[in-house]
Amino acid sequence: MRLGVCYYPEQWPEERWAHDARMMADIGLELVRIGEFAWSTYEPARGVEDFDWLDRAIDTLASSGLEVVLGTPTATPPVWLSLERPDILSVDPHGRRRPYGSRRHTCPTSGAYREESARIVERLGQRYGQHQAVVAWQIDNEPGNHDSARCWCEECQDAFSGWLLHRYGTVEALNDAWGTAFWSQTYPSFESVRLPVPTMTSHSPSLLLAHRRFASEQVVAALKEQYDLLEPLSPGRLLTTNLYLFELDVDAHQVMRLGGAAAFDSYPHGSAEPADVAYRLDFARGAAGPGRETWIMEQQPGPINWTEANPPVPPGQLTDWVTQAAAAGVDTLLFFRWRAARYGQEQYHSGLLRHDGTPTRAHEEVRALAIGDVTKPRATVALLHSWDDAWALDIDPHAPGFDYLRHMVDVHAAARGLGHAIDIVPPGDALTGYQVVLAPYLHLASPERSAALESAVGAGATIVVGPRALVKDRDDNWVNQRFPAGITDHLGGHVAEFLAVDEPISIVPWNVDAGRWLETMDVTGEDTAVLASYANGYVQNAPAVIRSGSWVYVGCSSRAAWAACLELLIGRA
Amino acid sequence: MRLGVCYYPEQWPEERWAHDARMMADIGLELVRIGEFAWSTYEPARGVEDFDWLDRAIDTLASSGLEVVLGTPTATPPVWLSLERPDILSVDPHGRRRPYGSRRHTCPTSGAYREESARIVERLGQRYGQHQAVVAWQIDNEPGNHDSARCWCEECQDAFSGWLLHRYGTVEALNDAWGTAFWSQTYPSFESVRLPVPTMTSHSPSLLLAHRRFASEQVVAALKEQYDLLEPLSPGRLLTTNLYLFELDVDAHQVMRLGGAAAFDSYPHGSAEPADVAYRLDFARGAAGPGRETWIMEQQPGPINWTEANPPVPPGQLTDWVTQAAAAGVDTLLFFRWRAARYGQEQYHSGLLRHDGTPTRAHEEVRALAIGDVTKPRATVALLHSWDDAWALDIDPHAPGFDYLRHMVDVHAAARGLGHAIDIVPPGDALTGYQVVLAPYLHLASPERSAALESAVGAGATIVVGPRALVKDRDDNWVNQRFPAGITDHLGGHVAEFLAVDEPISIVPWNVDAGRWLETMDVTGEDTAVLASYANGYVQNAPAVIRSGSWVYVGCSSRAAWAACLELLIGRA
Amino acid sequence: MRLGVCYYPEQWPEERWAHDARMMADIGLELVRIGEFAWSTYEPARGVEDFDWLDRAIDTLASSGLEVVLGTPTATPPVWLSLERPDILSVDPHGRRRPYGSRRHTCPTSGAYREESARIVERLGQRYGQHQAVVAWQIDNEPGNHDSARCWCEECQDAFSGWLLHRYGTVEALNDAWGTAFWSQTYPSFESVRLPVPTMTSHSPSLLLAHRRFASEQVVAALKEQYDLLEPLSPGRLLTTNLYLFELDVDAHQVMRLGGAAAFDSYPHGSAEPADVAYRLDFARGAAGPGRETWIMEQQPGPINWTEANPPVPPGQLTDWVTQAAAAGVDTLLFFRWRAARYGQEQYHSGLLRHDGTPTRAHEEVRALAIGDVTKPRATVALLHSWDDAWALDIDPHAPGFDYLRHMVDVHAAARGLGHAIDIVPPGDALTGYQVVLAPYLHLASPERSAALESAVGAGATIVVGPRALVKDRDDNWVNQRFPAGITDHLGGHVAEFLAVDEPISIVPWNVDAGRWLETMDVTGEDTAVLASYANGYVQNAPAVIRSGSWVYVGCSSRAAWAACLELLIGRA
Repeated sequence: MRLGVCYYPEQWPEERWAHDARMMADIGLELVRIGEFAWSTYEPARGVEDFDWLDRAIDTLASSGLEVVLGTPTATPPVWLSLERPDILSVDPHGRRRPYGSRRHTCPTSGAYREESARIVERLGQRYGQHQAVVAWQIDNEPGNHDSARCWCEECQDAFSGWLLHRYGTVEALNDAWGTAFWSQTYPSFESVRLPVPTMTSHSPSLLLAHRRFASEQVVAALKEQYDLLEPLSPGRLLTTNLYLFELDVDAHQVMRLGGAAAFDSYPHGSAEPADVAYRLDFARGAAGPGRETWIMEQQPGPINWTEANPPVPPGQLTDWVTQAAAAGVDTLLFFRWRAARYGQEQYHSGLLRHDGTPTRAHEEVRALAIGDVTKPRATVALLHSWDDAWALDIDPHAPGFDYLRHMVDVHAAARGLGHAIDIVPPGDALTGYQVVLAPYLHLASPERSAALESAVGAGATIVVGPRALVKDRDDNWVNQRFPAGITDHLGGHVAEFLAVDEPISIVPWNVDAGRWLETMDVTGEDTAVLASYANGYVQNAPAVIRSGSWVYVGCSSRAAWAACLELLIGRA
Repeated sequence: MRLGVCYYPEQWPEERWAHDARMMADIGLELVRIGEFAWSTYEPARGVEDFDWLDRAIDTLASSGLEVVLGTPTATPPVWLSLERPDILSVDPHGRRRPYGSRRHTCPTSGAYREESARIVERLGQRYGQHQAVVAWQIDNEPGNHDSARCWCEECQDAFSGWLLHRYGTVEALNDAWGTAFWSQTYPSFESVRLPVPTMTSHSPSLLLAHRRFASEQVVAALKEQYDLLEPLSPGRLLTTNLYLFELDVDAHQVMRLGGAAAFDSYPHGSAEPADVAYRLDFARGAAGPGRETWIMEQQPGPINWTEANPPVPPGQLTDWVTQAAAAGVDTLLFFRWRAARYGQEQYHSGLLRHDGTPTRAHEEVRALAIGDVTKPRATVALLHSWDDAWALDIDPHAPGFDYLRHMVDVHAAARGLGHAIDIVPPGDALTGYQVVLAPYLHLASPERSAALESAVGAGATIVVGPRALVKDRDDNWVNQRFPAGITDHLGGHVAEFLAVDEPISIVPWNVDAGRWLETMDVTGEDTAVLASYANGYVQNAPAVIRSGSWVYVGCSSRAAWAACLELLIGRA
Repeated sequence: MRLGVCYYPEQWPEERWAHDARMMADIGLELVRIGEFAWSTYEPARGVEDFDWLDRAIDTLASSGLEVVLGTPTATPPVWLSLERPDILSVDPHGRRRPYGSRRHTCPTSGAYREESARIVERLGQRYGQHQAVVAWQIDNEPGNHDSARCWCEECQDAFSGWLLHRYGTVEALNDAWGTAFWSQTYPSFESVRLPVPTMTSHSPSLLLAHRRFASEQVVAALKEQYDLLEPLSPGRLLTTNLYLFELDVDAHQVMRLGGAAAFDSYPHGSAEPADVAYRLDFARGAAGPGRETWIMEQQPGPINWTEANPPVPPGQLTDWVTQAAAAGVDTLLFFRWRAARYGQEQYHSGLLRHDGTPTRAHEEVRALAIGDVTKPRATVALLHSWDDAWALDIDPHAPGFDYLRHMVDVHAAARGLGHAIDIVPPGDALTGYQVVLAPYLHLASPERSAALESAVGAGATIVVGPRALVKDRDDNWVNQRFPAGITDHLGGHVAEFLAVDEPISIVPWNVDAGRWLETMDVTGEDTAVLASYANGYVQNAPAVIRSGSWVYVGCSSRAAWAACLELLIGRA
């Protein structure tokens, strides 16, 4: 695993650069990411360029043997550009154009934003695309972060109408698909489908899901324009971007399949719990897929500044994080950041150096890192993750606190706790070669989904389907059949009743809590076995987990229930 | 008690209608409410009508012997109408017109809204007013719900100025009545009294109370226009509407006295506690008054979808709810809804059928219902409930958590716990025939109020007055005398000090907690007895409950204190 | 200590005035504050004046031997003026002009507001400036209260640009000082530095701090205009204003140094804890400085109405508050208010009389007050308080719950608990004559600050510096050296690491909890002693408190740690 660091030459005196570069090389760093927030420094006004300092910065780094990852600066356009072309700025749900002064205040759809992005990216590509020291590019920075994918400007409204036209063809088809007769909100035209803004009570889930998909696709399209521009200008270089997983803004799978690597930013203290780190690592490797690299573009080296608590990082913790990343197959890892910032919003974010340039504990830990050759894990367990399902659950959780990521991490942790390596597989990827396919939350039904599961069974896999599976159609409307729709025959059973429980219910024979979301099952097949039942409440004795051949349905939601079930199914590794 | 169900033929294939109708009849349902959200289906565009499907739907229901309650569709005007006449939409406190896409996004004052409502209601009345199967009408749907009574559009502003002119005559009279010299906010004209929107700190309580009254009256006036139009067009049919009690938006008594029945929607899981169900039942019967019917237009049959927790409904629970309603004198009860919705915002709301049309547990419980003849309860205890008092308390609770409905339910539950039947009596209704009149929160003083109490005493009743009684005048300003103003002579005592207590205080001889709001009493009359005193704190030994002849004042607020007091006064039934 | 009361003749019938005046004199009151909310009463319309009633009110009070504190009415301009000149109203961050109907809805920068304020103040000065009974003026009312200092109108935007020009000279200097290269937000002009409004994520701390300073200075400038106008018109009278400490809106030291007294409003039940009362008293005396008076312009006499809980005030409590104020050197104290209001927003606020004019317990306590001659405390301990530091901490607390005032009160209470009298000293005041100078939170570094500390040491003082000291420069950017910058040589040590801890850490040898914010120290000096170290966690054994000669650094933040440290340093008084 190669190591590197994020650096901001524009924030430090030029006299210091060479010293920093030598210090980096000295502790074994090979890569330096620079430039992603430097637009106003190299283009201080319309028609004025000053790339000399950047040339010298790259050369200085190269002189110490460091390779450069160059960022495109489109997450923070300069103030002069926001003033000259205010339509690059996004608009909030109340119609207020978002002011500059922070970051990601741009609209991904805006023609002006796309145009100016293309212009500056082309200029960078021309100047640095074939620079020997530049080995990779980071496109934009944390796309979607800060809930920036959704914008309510008129360009987005127009694009949304066009997107709907493309998807549904006629407004009658849209009205049918969304069931707008409900509450009498039948649309007379595509133009009349307005981007959802707060009103008396909630909007149609079909509209909300369409908005999520549309906004994510706008971000992906804006990114792709940059990839497409840079590729010919910078041949042989790896192109990627850095996602802050797991915000709902953008479909991470679509973003991570652009370019040559799946990269994300690793801030364990911004996650809810340690098991999240493992989930992110397996997720990114699965998102990369075979033959593409996995990067951590930013790795927290000490306390961060933007969470509620910003807890300390004890000695050894950073070493553990890096070792865990290597074991999970990360190819390249950069620390964020070299030196703590003296200015701006992130002054309390730690670096490998303190604000005054003296080395921290983290600096010494990095120097001491000894990561041998690591083989990427080979998993026999697959776990299915899909942004569509996450959005649908977020739009209507029904049971308080039932959260997509939380549930996925629970099932993932249940399998990891048994010692199994796990691949987290995007929708559409092949499921062949796995002994077990876990589908903890397969909410939206489609013929393709059922076919993919059947084909995995055909290839020898056992399929373990979690609750609320195959309940809704692609437009987030309820299926017109018993669920899990499309696989009830395979299971020899279906869901009888679902419950957002308000008091603990256990399952036997495992004697563990069943979770906040439960389903009771009706068994219809002769070969269907009840693996577990509820132990108390009015659902006592009702089946909770059933199995028929290669098909298993788990009607409950706790980590403990899944751990017990998986131990029965696949044992300890 | 007749039973029925809410049905949406426009949401299901026509082929299914007859099957559904037979199933309804089969389990003993007699009535079906339809049409209240169907505007866009029967009037899909300006000048285009399609009532044929509705004709067929009604005929299909009638063929199975079912009677129809037809809804007027004014809670959800179609999108084309919102686009054509945007001034039907309400405006939020920040001046933003509320977007369509949900429901109740209309302004009750809007001339365009009133005009279009009248047009469509007249059309419905002409077509279905004398249809044999149509036995009742539901006007609008849950008027006031989602805080929809208050609107800040210019039409409301103008109407508010006119309303004030009508009420006060001159702006000098208004300034006097509201005491606007306080904080120097004397109004130069009625036009300058703006609808209250958030500002640096709070607005005058007189303004806030006037706004509450005005908004409620606008809703009542808009409803009344529909009643007045339909009555001649649909002779002999019962007219009503369905309230979601107990939002503060509209004065439920004024609404429930329109037409032929007091109807409400019963969602026990949307209430704070089980005692609320009993309160709603007695409230609706009292709001109906003698000779008018009480309806539950919508009865939750299983889990609902719009609360925080959406808990399960165990077997037998629905039967209990229906039995309780019958015992409280409900004449007609409809379940909401027949079949769970596949589309729109309420997909997780249960029905008697599942989404796929199969029967649920609730369906079987309804089939098994066996409610014999029930006599309406005859109560000897009256309890006074008033929207004016509820608004005034909401505007300035002073003690955190002191909530009008909570307090009313506490006193009601205290009396019910002793086995007494209770009538909840609207302001202005006769108090004759009751042995005891409970006035748990008689906040606003007026000569009429004192006279009504005196006349009840004259007719033999004992009056039990709760804390914060007769403290304010009609404009929510403090009386210029000791309180409870106007009855201190009857009591031989008055309030010495009021306390929003921060630590538990008990009363003796009952040894129960006295509640969060307490008052100490000065006894001035020779015949006045102290029934209970405070047991600790600096109020130790101060009188808490006093009595003189037929007049009792309870200076504390807990359910336990009221239960002890009422047991002493009226014993167990 | 003189006693007085706040009175609103415009809110009560004229027939009652003389009776009230006699009652006031009867219980020993000498002063009456009037008029601060009476603008609409004496100027009911443009060009119309009615001062006769105010003449009579003052004369009536004077007839009973009472002296008058006359308020200027600029906190509540009349409605007719808000309508005529709407640009006197402030604008919220979303660009909405704040509506009238409450108070403090004005912009301190507005030319129209300044002009109208000057006009009415001049008129008052001319009429009452030399009235024999008028002995003092209250300028405005609680300036800054309700977050009213910050306004986002165009006049404020222009004034802010001018303020920045004055402070930085060139926009390049501003860009350098604020480090705007961070996130590429370099400003092309002063005009482009917009007042901060909510955007995707946070704004630059340099901008936020500048905004705080600018807004506070606007308030101070607006007040000063009134002082400057009144001084020649009312010779020999004391001028002051009343602050509601400790909102962040305005720099209380700058306000309290205007005129002849430092006055504040004392509402212990609006504070977080009892120790806050003592802090406010010492703060006001220090803000007054030698030779100027300390006033409590409003003293809570019983329950107040505007907090979450509004708890009762037990017998004796008011006497304790008044006695404590006298002991702390308060020269004049007025109760708020004489009689509880029958109208408006504060009806639940208690007075010395009830709403109906009968006396309360508080009235009797005031009559019984017996405060002998009190000498102002002479302190040997100084404690440094600065608004700049408070703003900087508020902008970026980093550790949740780390609050400036909370921390200051903790250290103050630690010293008071040892029996020491304490002066709370504003920035710039001399530190000579103190044996100990406590600097609990000396966040922003400057040469003047270091020099002031050094000169105090030169005069014989021991300096006890708290955590996060001398970390940032004047623009809230991190110093480029080890901190506490500028005094590390004196200490023979510096901070190694700072921690926002998430689990309790103790210090030895004192065996107390160290607080939520901790720092470990590196000791570099030979004469530097470690007074205390951490007892557990990964910081175990690291120095927490160090001393070198007259310099002490306390790297932790709990009241208990400071109490132990101060007991060691200065013992019990």
